[in-house]
Amino acid sequence: MTIAKKGTIYLVGAGPGDPELLTLKAADLLRSADVILHDDLIPPAILERCSPAAQCISVGKRCGHARVTQAQIHSLMISAAQQGSAVVRLKSGDPMVFGRAGEEMDALRDAGIPFEIVPGITAMFAAAAAAQHSLTDRRSASTIILTTAHRASGAGPARASLWKGSLPADATVGIYMPGRDLRALAWDMRAAGLAPALPCLVVSDISRANQRIEHTTLDRMERLAEDDAPVLVLAGWPLEERASPAADGSRSVLAAWDAAPAPVG
Amino acid sequence: MTIAKKGTIYLVGAGPGDPELLTLKAADLLRSADVILHDDLIPPAILERCSPAAQCISVGKRCGHARVTQAQIHSLMISAAQQGSAVVRLKSGDPMVFGRAGEEMDALRDAGIPFEIVPGITAMFAAAAAAQHSLTDRRSASTIILTTAHRASGAGPARASLWKGSLPADATVGIYMPGRDLRALAWDMRAAGLAPALPCLVVSDISRANQRIEHTTLDRMERLAEDDAPVLVLAGWPLEERASPAADGSRSVLAAWDAAPAPVG
Repeated sequence: MTIAKKGTIYLVGAGPGDPELLTLKAADLLRSADVILHDDLIPPAILERCSPAAQCISVGKRCGHARVTQAQIHSLMISAAQQGSAVVRLKSGDPMVFGRAGEEMDALRDAGIPFEIVPGITAMFAAAAAAQHSLTDRRSASTIILTTAHRASGAGPARASLWKGSLPADATVGIYMPGRDLRALAWDMRAAGLAPALPCLVVSDISRANQRIEHTTLDRMERLAEDDAPVLVLAGWPLEERASPAADGSRSVLAAWDAAPAPVG
Repeated sequence: MTIAKKGTIYLVGAGPGDPELLTLKAADLLRSADVILHDDLIPPAILERCSPAAQCISVGKRCGHARVTQAQIHSLMISAAQQGSAVVRLKSGDPMVFGRAGEEMDALRDAGIPFEIVPGITAMFAAAAAAQHSLTDRRSASTIILTTAHRASGAGPARASLWKGSLPADATVGIYMPGRDLRALAWDMRAAGLAPALPCLVVSDISRANQRIEHTTLDRMERLAEDDAPVLVLAGWPLEERASPAADGSRSVLAAWDAAPAPVG
């Protein structure tokens, strides 16, 4: 049982969205924190776990429309801790993966505020679990690569630099923030040496009620309709589609996938 | 609140070792399962969370000395489920990362047994949290690579094939099961194009009471003494050592690291 300490900041991973995928420590900290500063993508079912007495502030940025600047997030965190609050900075997935934890930790170090990091389940691993595909397989994949098509510092996605050089044939690759243009993404991955027949998953709202997982291949992905931007694209030989008995009809991924519109292409 | 279903098998990630880093779902399943088949590396503090009425069986393999074969694990799981038990197959870290989940799922599919996968915190992310280093940073690292120096199928580590081609300079790399020969590992990473001054972490027993995190660089790692095999080696520019106030003296990583013998080299 962990209790959030006064004057301390916890950078906490909320996982992919299902509250059951919070760690025990994250759930304890949410329950005991005085102030929670959270990303936009955190679902209400997780925020309901905060103490009713806690101040719960959304500091999210979506689709490039900044509402709260990074500097404002830093000063909100720091002033709350300096006033003696126990502060949780709640981030989607894992805080150390494609977030701005590096900058936030630097700001806390500069301000001399004690902090702790609590890891969370990142979307790629939640997607592998939901789709029932291992990410490594001693028969076909010995490496996992997490990368992103989105550059926070530039003006929009910088596709040309998604991957410098060639991608190894025995890797399973997860592309975070892939953007809407899956055709360009597939083309880039082909250019990096990946096979046209490579199995891919196009994933959105993983672990949530409206979760979608589309099985495709790199060459078929080029023909997928533009839709709501998926959260994640996975590509790798272990991701080949397989029939599987459902563990639980009501929450089974395969059932959810069957019920979803057929993938285009 | 999740309750393990009879006749169903749950492949559950136990995370890095700290019971507080179990997911709520994993803790619920441990509490409600009839049979738990677990790896050797799962600490007692996690196994204590199983129901006292549950059958708790170690099916671990350590240091290449197989005690229970993979085929025996499959038949143990399957027969328990067929007899109507709710079965948890508890694996260190995340089940889809460098385990044999692919083979286990294939066996369950062949046997027609319903199963579900529950993701867990993998060691690399727990290490990043404990050491308070982001794995990505828009200023220096846009990619995370998880790989292994150990090949389950071959006779011991096959170092020559650790990485086919060059490693990108802006990646943070985690090497699972690095083996005892850090000198050979560092040499390989240098051969893959990584800079001698690249910051590295040599990590063992992450998130546990005896956790050790040694900050070094690729060229200094060549001179590290052979010790108990570390669980994980991390390398990347965001891992540069920084001073940081401790959030909690009793469990702080930096305190633990300060108390550890000074790194060699």
